[in-house]
Amino acid sequence: MTKTIAVIAGQGDLPILIAHEAKKMGYRVVFVALKPLQDRSPEGVEHVEYVGVGKFGKLLKVLRSNSVEEIVMAGKVPKTLMYKTKVVPDRRALKLLMSLKDRKDDTIMTVVTEELQSEGFTVRNTTDFAGELLVKKGIYTKRKPTKDELKDIAFGFRIAKEIGRLDIGQTVVVKSLAVMAVEAIEGTDEAILRGGRLAGDGAVVVKVSKPQQDMRFDVPTVGMKTLQSMLQSKARVLALEAGNTIV
Amino acid sequence: MTKTIAVIAGQGDLPILIAHEAKKMGYRVVFVALKPLQDRSPEGVEHVEYVGVGKFGKLLKVLRSNSVEEIVMAGKVPKTLMYKTKVVPDRRALKLLMSLKDRKDDTIMTVVTEELQSEGFTVRNTTDFAGELLVKKGIYTKRKPTKDELKDIAFGFRIAKEIGRLDIGQTVVVKSLAVMAVEAIEGTDEAILRGGRLAGDGAVVVKVSKPQQDMRFDVPTVGMKTLQSMLQSKARVLALEAGNTIV
Repeated sequence: MTKTIAVIAGQGDLPILIAHEAKKMGYRVVFVALKPLQDRSPEGVEHVEYVGVGKFGKLLKVLRSNSVEEIVMAGKVPKTLMYKTKVVPDRRALKLLMSLKDRKDDTIMTVVTEELQSEGFTVRNTTDFAGELLVKKGIYTKRKPTKDELKDIAFGFRIAKEIGRLDIGQTVVVKSLAVMAVEAIEGTDEAILRGGRLAGDGAVVVKVSKPQQDMRFDVPTVGMKTLQSMLQSKARVLALEAGNTIV
Repeated sequence: MTKTIAVIAGQGDLPILIAHEAKKMGYRVVFVALKPLQDRSPEGVEHVEYVGVGKFGKLLKVLRSNSVEEIVMAGKVPKTLMYKTKVVPDRRALKLLMSLKDRKDDTIMTVVTEELQSEGFTVRNTTDFAGELLVKKGIYTKRKPTKDELKDIAFGFRIAKEIGRLDIGQTVVVKSLAVMAVEAIEGTDEAILRGGRLAGDGAVVVKVSKPQQDMRFDVPTVGMKTLQSMLQSKARVLALEAGNTIV
């Protein structure tokens, strides 16, 4: 029998691609677009629903009424929304929010994921549906990194893993073995632009998964916007973690 | 016999205050202003010299020709100078620069300090001359921090110490137990402004010394500009480390 999967969709194209992949794999797909982050309705999926960010009770109702068995989450849900209070959580979300020991990304997403599991849904790894989108080992540019750039990549990788371990962010910008910028809540693109501005040209951007990365949410992702930020900031190298990053 | 101390002066008023304090303590004071960061000549000191940032050979010559025995360093020397290549190091500085294993602040300053020591100068702790300027335990505002703000202070303190341990920066901006901004090379004020912008109002700013802080350089300092940045970013609490911070 065909299984039903819900794609819970944050920002960007990734949820659309994930929905198509799930469809190809034989699932019946319910696309749950989180307003105001996602407003598209991908072609070929069985059903599309719109749910406001922070409306957790509404989300559960939608999942149940559509006989959803599995869930996959994709697309960024910026935490800044929460701080600018554009999002009004419903009662169920508020209860979750009150139970948090802190408001790190991991803490929030783990609680949300566990709550979904405890309601009987299976939450799958995003990467299970990313297939061809996962970055492979290798050099993707014509130009090979220089010896100095390789040193900066190794240095940046170590620092980025530490920043990830603290669940602050996924991205650091380095140059000549010094840290130019650390991503916190502002997001990858703003961190790249700031790092580039401070470094002058030739910065090295490193984006990695956390040591404790849960592949069910917040998998590192790189898109056109990242490349545009790189270009704008005159950064020279983008280093990603093979197998763990969606491009 | 009167000892001669050189105050190596980066940005701001702190070097001036330190020079006056050393004078009061009975030293003969040589004020070495690092161009283009410091261009004042404090009253009452015995001698003022101007040396360009990065002119390490020149610095040594100045110290020797003035019979300097002890050295105290004060005032920020922003590393961004180095990356915007406004600073041309002399041969002696270049040699030091080439010997670095990385370009973290600690690495640079430790090498500079050790080089000064190996040339026969005693490098004193900045805090030895800060006396009344060191922040004491207590609440400096009329308003006491709320329970939630105290939680944010404890959370921010832990994160800031980790960031310091990695020698990335001294300051973090937090709100509701999540990290809004981490200071890297951009400096405290820019980090506060960014964090405040991302957090909306009510952010908590925490500035601490590194766990491995060397009191001979880079002691955390807070001045009027920090308070102005706090005001501008609508941040509500500034938490500092008692005994280790110069205000």
